[in-house]
Amino acid sequence: MKKKLKELAEFVGGTLVGDGEVEITGVASIDEAEAGQITFIANPKYLRKLGETRASAIIVSDKVTTADKPLICAANPQLAFAKILTLFFVKPYQPKGIDPNARINPTAQLGKDLTIYPYVYIGDRCRIEDCVTLYPGVYVGEDTVIGEGSILHPNVSVYSDSVIGKRVILHSGVVIGADGFGFVKDGKTNVKIPQVGKVIIEDDVEVGANSTIDRAALGQTIIRRGVKIDNLVQVAHNVEIGEDSIIIAHVGIAGSTKIGKNVILAGQAGVVGHIEIGDNVMVGAQSGVGQNLPSGQAFSGSPAFPHREWLRAVNIFQKLPEMKKTLTDIEARLKKVEQAISEKGKET
Amino acid sequence: MKKKLKELAEFVGGTLVGDGEVEITGVASIDEAEAGQITFIANPKYLRKLGETRASAIIVSDKVTTADKPLICAANPQLAFAKILTLFFVKPYQPKGIDPNARINPTAQLGKDLTIYPYVYIGDRCRIEDCVTLYPGVYVGEDTVIGEGSILHPNVSVYSDSVIGKRVILHSGVVIGADGFGFVKDGKTNVKIPQVGKVIIEDDVEVGANSTIDRAALGQTIIRRGVKIDNLVQVAHNVEIGEDSIIIAHVGIAGSTKIGKNVILAGQAGVVGHIEIGDNVMVGAQSGVGQNLPSGQAFSGSPAFPHREWLRAVNIFQKLPEMKKTLTDIEARLKKVEQAISEKGKET
Amino acid sequence: MKKKLKELAEFVGGTLVGDGEVEITGVASIDEAEAGQITFIANPKYLRKLGETRASAIIVSDKVTTADKPLICAANPQLAFAKILTLFFVKPYQPKGIDPNARINPTAQLGKDLTIYPYVYIGDRCRIEDCVTLYPGVYVGEDTVIGEGSILHPNVSVYSDSVIGKRVILHSGVVIGADGFGFVKDGKTNVKIPQVGKVIIEDDVEVGANSTIDRAALGQTIIRRGVKIDNLVQVAHNVEIGEDSIIIAHVGIAGSTKIGKNVILAGQAGVVGHIEIGDNVMVGAQSGVGQNLPSGQAFSGSPAFPHREWLRAVNIFQKLPEMKKTLTDIEARLKKVEQAISEKGKET
Repeated sequence: MKKKLKELAEFVGGTLVGDGEVEITGVASIDEAEAGQITFIANPKYLRKLGETRASAIIVSDKVTTADKPLICAANPQLAFAKILTLFFVKPYQPKGIDPNARINPTAQLGKDLTIYPYVYIGDRCRIEDCVTLYPGVYVGEDTVIGEGSILHPNVSVYSDSVIGKRVILHSGVVIGADGFGFVKDGKTNVKIPQVGKVIIEDDVEVGANSTIDRAALGQTIIRRGVKIDNLVQVAHNVEIGEDSIIIAHVGIAGSTKIGKNVILAGQAGVVGHIEIGDNVMVGAQSGVGQNLPSGQAFSGSPAFPHREWLRAVNIFQKLPEMKKTLTDIEARLKKVEQAISEKGKET
Repeated sequence: MKKKLKELAEFVGGTLVGDGEVEITGVASIDEAEAGQITFIANPKYLRKLGETRASAIIVSDKVTTADKPLICAANPQLAFAKILTLFFVKPYQPKGIDPNARINPTAQLGKDLTIYPYVYIGDRCRIEDCVTLYPGVYVGEDTVIGEGSILHPNVSVYSDSVIGKRVILHSGVVIGADGFGFVKDGKTNVKIPQVGKVIIEDDVEVGANSTIDRAALGQTIIRRGVKIDNLVQVAHNVEIGEDSIIIAHVGIAGSTKIGKNVILAGQAGVVGHIEIGDNVMVGAQSGVGQNLPSGQAFSGSPAFPHREWLRAVNIFQKLPEMKKTLTDIEARLKKVEQAISEKGKET
Repeated sequence: MKKKLKELAEFVGGTLVGDGEVEITGVASIDEAEAGQITFIANPKYLRKLGETRASAIIVSDKVTTADKPLICAANPQLAFAKILTLFFVKPYQPKGIDPNARINPTAQLGKDLTIYPYVYIGDRCRIEDCVTLYPGVYVGEDTVIGEGSILHPNVSVYSDSVIGKRVILHSGVVIGADGFGFVKDGKTNVKIPQVGKVIIEDDVEVGANSTIDRAALGQTIIRRGVKIDNLVQVAHNVEIGEDSIIIAHVGIAGSTKIGKNVILAGQAGVVGHIEIGDNVMVGAQSGVGQNLPSGQAFSGSPAFPHREWLRAVNIFQKLPEMKKTLTDIEARLKKVEQAISEKGKET
């Protein structure tokens, strides 16, 4: 592919600075870009690299107005770069048809323009909508819906009765709809509570490799529109995750908890069951959330408390030995003072 | 299905209060139940919902004796509910036979009434007992036994020489018997220690999606009867987990550690290798167990110590900045006092 | 297999003590060994077991020079044991050929002496080198290289454009080359940044069950020669892990971070993105690394700081309630002292 810089500027809605006739043939990071390629700088601290890169053009913040090289200035340079990457690298969907070595139960309903690879299994009464891609080893249990344009990467397992929205991406090894972890003790024995609910994944959700989203005990586990889940994340039964939230790798969310919209749970954070996390909350990496969190704030620590307070507390934590020493020292000095006073008392 | 309330009361061994002729056609949670359905209240704090639910009958603790609606009073309402859920939702096993697109090595021994889906692989000399279900993409390595009535969900991998008991449930993506993580340094190079032991999973164990249980270096990794393991759990080589223990999501147990009976390891907890955890121990979420733990107690923290002490310590942790301020303040006041005394001393 | 002890001593380069004609027919741990078997003691504290074991010979450190039983004395007894285990248990590779139920795209290039099981999928233009083993359910995306002698266990997924070196072992459920977790906000919506880089795994790497290594956004995610990764580990886009490093279960490494050579990241540790960890660094279990770490040191805690300081700090953490009490006590005593002085002041 080859595009003139002025075409790219227009495509991303940015402002062209310099020669718009430059031909761009590829995309690369600032350090690896070669002549003919376009790159970007999102963080102002890397602006010094403007003079070093071999790229033929650079996408920068609209606060930058001049440079030795042609620029596209954009309000959000990273977003502009993502659009150009998509233009250069994402090929339009081309259906490959249904492989004869896929097993599709005859009661399943199939849309058009499908890509179904060998060793795919589709159960009874499923509905596979148009333009869906199912890679090898994908399992779709009975009565499940896969929405238009969704992509299930190799070896994804979707249990029965699940509802997957449109343009959903499930990476390899993802498991949707396995039984929630529900047992009740009968004496010492753990008796299984049948998990008879389902999973609903709304449109435009992406789930990373080997993450697991359990079916509800009763009712639904719901992942709302636009949620992005990283690898190896655990979402327990009856959890609901609000729109556009971001869940980083190794996060675990226990049963029946409700996460708000536009929340960020950083890597390895854990959330107990039966609580609510408000909209726009940020939870720091490795934090452990043990109670409801109000909207719009940042929390860290295990158990989690407001992030700024946590920053101060961990800072002091590292100096506890010093603090302990001070305390011991003060105690000794105080004892001396007490003795001095007591002796004075006797003197007088 | 349709059952009279008095039949259900008898089925769960509970006491009927009110009209036993009410017909129950389904089961739901207290908030979602409709007329004709039965629900339950396990936690006394939700008893106020007795008057609000649209359910036609409610299972409650046997401490409740009257209500506007028919009740089943049971010592353990959740257990009674689980039994009714099973009655309504769990269909009796119906074997579906062996799909011609499964690959079964001729030296494997097959029981009767099997359900073997396409794209299943069964290695040499395996023994698959009666009424086993193997979903698509299941791999069973050579010389492995799968006990009667066990269910291996899609894309489960069981390496060679494993022994899986009766009525075991392995959810999608579970890996049993992969090599333990054993290396020895030869200079800087990591030399693999062949992992030549096996995995034994006893009866009535359930393992959640994408959890991994490694084969022993020598000898066995053992999961005892009735253990329930959640999703994304790591069990290392030569670990033994005692009967009826519960291991929540993202827990990691390092090599050769022995976990007692009826233990609970909460989410994201970690346990180092070569230690013993006694019976009936509870380990809090995200805790890190670094040494042997005696039976019957609760532990939290990383490293873990008794739970009640931990509760007090984390409470103070959050107030460290305040405590530091007090200490600085005291130090200054003490200095003044010392000066005052020293001046007095000079005066006299 | 049957070997004379003197042959084994020579094989591992150790010193024979006692009867070299003893015939060894197997290998076992010190507690389980029977007559005819060889075992080993690596840790001097177990030397007392020398007199108890039923083994016919023991591999010990070269500091041990006599015992009632024949010995092989070696500088590194565990390494010698690993070599003997390999001798007894690891069978030479025997190719089984290509199963007709594997799907190999015609443009793929195949080496010789392959073992390709049923339900394997190999995409266009792949290169599968000699002596590779692909177990059932393995997916190899287009344009991928699998190096000589590598073993991909059941249900491994390798996305397109990946490069897997020689003698690499990928355990079941491993996912190589799934999209990195890259999104940019456009208002509240998360816009996907196409992940157009690749994964390179060098020679002699082993990756544990269900671990995930994401493809780079641009450029490469690189796992260097000899790295060993345990189960359920997450390696994000553009990470580089240096030669011979060891990454234990449940570790998560965020994007663009560079890990040095010979590093150990213990279980459940997390590392933020865009930092560098020096060579020979050790990071303790459950630690959270938030900034660059210099070479050759050990770190623990979340956030991580030098391990020895952390040991002292967590020790005091457990005694915070006591420390708080001391502080309150001191404050009260100080107040009394201040009053005494103030009264004295009034007196005089």
